Amino acid sequence: MDRVIRIGMLGCGTVGGGVATILARESDDITARTGAKLELVRIAVRDTARDRGLGLPAGTFTTDPLSVVEAEDIDVIVEVMGGREPAGSLIRRALELGKPVVTANKELVAHEGPELYAAAQAAGVDLAYEAAVAGAIPIIKPLKESLAGDRVLRVVGILNGTTNYILTRMTEEGADYAEVLADAQALGYAEADPTADVGGHDAAAKCAILASLAFDTTVHADDVFTQGIETVNATDIRVADRLGYVVKLLGIASEVDGRVGVRVHPAFLPKAHPLASVRGAFNAVYVEAAAAGELMFYGPGAGAEPTGSAVVGDVIDVARNLLQTARGAIESQHRVKDLRSIDELRTQYYVLLDVEDAPGVLAAVATTFGDHGVSIAQVWQEGAEDSAQLVLITHRAREDALRTTVEALAHLPSIRSVASVLRVEAEVFAS
Amino acid sequence: MDRVIRIGMLGCGTVGGGVATILARESDDITARTGAKLELVRIAVRDTARDRGLGLPAGTFTTDPLSVVEAEDIDVIVEVMGGREPAGSLIRRALELGKPVVTANKELVAHEGPELYAAAQAAGVDLAYEAAVAGAIPIIKPLKESLAGDRVLRVVGILNGTTNYILTRMTEEGADYAEVLADAQALGYAEADPTADVGGHDAAAKCAILASLAFDTTVHADDVFTQGIETVNATDIRVADRLGYVVKLLGIASEVDGRVGVRVHPAFLPKAHPLASVRGAFNAVYVEAAAAGELMFYGPGAGAEPTGSAVVGDVIDVARNLLQTARGAIESQHRVKDLRSIDELRTQYYVLLDVEDAPGVLAAVATTFGDHGVSIAQVWQEGAEDSAQLVLITHRAREDALRTTVEALAHLPSIRSVASVLRVEAEVFAS
Repeated sequence: MDRVIRIGMLGCGTVGGGVATILARESDDITARTGAKLELVRIAVRDTARDRGLGLPAGTFTTDPLSVVEAEDIDVIVEVMGGREPAGSLIRRALELGKPVVTANKELVAHEGPELYAAAQAAGVDLAYEAAVAGAIPIIKPLKESLAGDRVLRVVGILNGTTNYILTRMTEEGADYAEVLADAQALGYAEADPTADVGGHDAAAKCAILASLAFDTTVHADDVFTQGIETVNATDIRVADRLGYVVKLLGIASEVDGRVGVRVHPAFLPKAHPLASVRGAFNAVYVEAAAAGELMFYGPGAGAEPTGSAVVGDVIDVARNLLQTARGAIESQHRVKDLRSIDELRTQYYVLLDVEDAPGVLAAVATTFGDHGVSIAQVWQEGAEDSAQLVLITHRAREDALRTTVEALAHLPSIRSVASVLRVEAEVFAS
Repeated sequence: MDRVIRIGMLGCGTVGGGVATILARESDDITARTGAKLELVRIAVRDTARDRGLGLPAGTFTTDPLSVVEAEDIDVIVEVMGGREPAGSLIRRALELGKPVVTANKELVAHEGPELYAAAQAAGVDLAYEAAVAGAIPIIKPLKESLAGDRVLRVVGILNGTTNYILTRMTEEGADYAEVLADAQALGYAEADPTADVGGHDAAAKCAILASLAFDTTVHADDVFTQGIETVNATDIRVADRLGYVVKLLGIASEVDGRVGVRVHPAFLPKAHPLASVRGAFNAVYVEAAAAGELMFYGPGAGAEPTGSAVVGDVIDVARNLLQTARGAIESQHRVKDLRSIDELRTQYYVLLDVEDAPGVLAAVATTFGDHGVSIAQVWQEGAEDSAQLVLITHRAREDALRTTVEALAHLPSIRSVASVLRVEAEVFAS
């Protein structure tokens, strides 16, 4: 029990602060559980003068991250600086030197995961990234290890806290998107430039990582069909509620006929689905597997200590392996699968049209749907005389057929605009 | 990739059948993920003549479990026979021979866990038991590994599918316990002798295992305060509903002032709590940790393939370690903690009294509560004239004070019987 594992950390922002706090606070238990003392000995930051309130000696901090990576007295590298560079190069250098790496960097793993996994494997050391997806929620390890004997059929996640917070408030207050976003920004739940969150890009990066693991393949962030929540309006949410759904930003990865489809978009989700009750800034990942059936993992998706908890859990894992010159489970990418285009998706759709309140409008709309082979399950009119809206729910249809239908609708003289189009994930979750 | 890991299995009932099925069906993926081929070469059963429909050669089966454990050509032992003996002796023998063991045996682990962990540690091999708690749900690994850097504050689980199925149907149909139990037995959701499930003993065993891991200590099944759902009636559930609660059989382990309290009993749980929406035979474990915050793990708690999936996940884990002559994470029992008696519990209570509908009854009841220092938060009368019932909800009180109050109530002349007493887990979950 006399061994010491010395940790070098790259970055000391929100997550880094959480890591340092936890390592100090839980030191005794961590030592007992690891079988070695974990010491945070060096931290690379931009500004060494800033007091971070972590109670660490001033000599801990340096502005040179490469010196941390290359220091001979450092055993494990924790990367919490974020972004693709210089994080990627630093991680590659650490692996090259035979040092295990723990990272919380979803952007990097989503874009360069396979190259990094290969580098770690070549060096025979661990690369752990539990904190890159869904903060404190253990999901990488369950997919990579617990479900290693099973076949994952589908992964559906609420992977972004900001958008789930906004949609929850819109649902519970009947409020409009712009109003809630402004409030979320004022409260610190959304950033000044909220694009990465509300545009679905953050969720898409996480979904790519989960899809790669779930289906033993390689899905890059750019492979993910991505739509954000910017156009979701109060009517969409009201209609969903009336029909027994909630609107959620979902990341969905599934294998159909040997090909993997990965998409992030707002969708109608049945209220009875376990994901439907995930409120506020919480995240959750629902996994359907051939043998295990339906599983769900729920918890805080962000924050200093929640994400820090996942990082420290990984550090203990790689430290235990280091003590035994062993390696943890590796990514299995043995199944090279084609990706499935969003065009091939078959689901139900909700369409909201701003129409002129004149005779013949419904007939023209119905004809347009029929002409494109999309069958209507329900239709009704919302709103007052001069601002009439037509709500349509389709039967299952192919995405490309629905898209050409919507394009044609937009050209009908009696239609002022296509206000909303959302996927209705009803049959997929029939259970 | 040419290595073969040879598995011997003890028992081939429901779970064993699931294990054999999964190992055969997912063979290629399992080989790719493990880095070795897993072969199920021998199975000890009571009746070798029975056709189990698993497509295994007849020579696979033997009636001598010890011969499987001791066979030189067997690397890993899977124990799915259940019960404490001979399972315990066989596992100890396997560990002694340096063979890693995977078990689904909650009864054994709950009663003899610490001795078995010590035997595995002494032999330097793995003892894995993910399948012993909550079937397919990864919960042992998250507690032991993912949360190794964190401090668990509380674990609350719906750990028994049979009782959750019964309570869900009672809630959704307004039906009585006896009626639903009979139906559950007819449908195969409850056994002919349902005592282990409805009496809370199955949940208590699982809760002991979780408490030991969560708090780095030793909790035996017998240490768990245990009450079943046999006395829960339709009125209890109706009252709970009206007040914003559901009735669930909960396993609760928490650390208060350095001492660990572990209890299994039906309780009122706020409808907004993540566990409240766990329906039917599903299980879920809610974990509150100092850094990670609130996590929940949800899925099927039993069944051939769900439990089999957890067993095979463990087999892959121990096989990977075996290939590297490494060991997985071990149980840390460094914190010897006193157990907290149920008498010291402070919570709210719901009390249902069958009373005579006569003047002065409420005064007598209120006086009795007051005399014992238990303060009443709400009280009202249910039912018709000749079968009046009095419903009381207390403020937070100590369990022992509540118990003496109830004993005194039972002796009041105007009280026909104390129909129900249930804990109301409202403030514990304030979040």
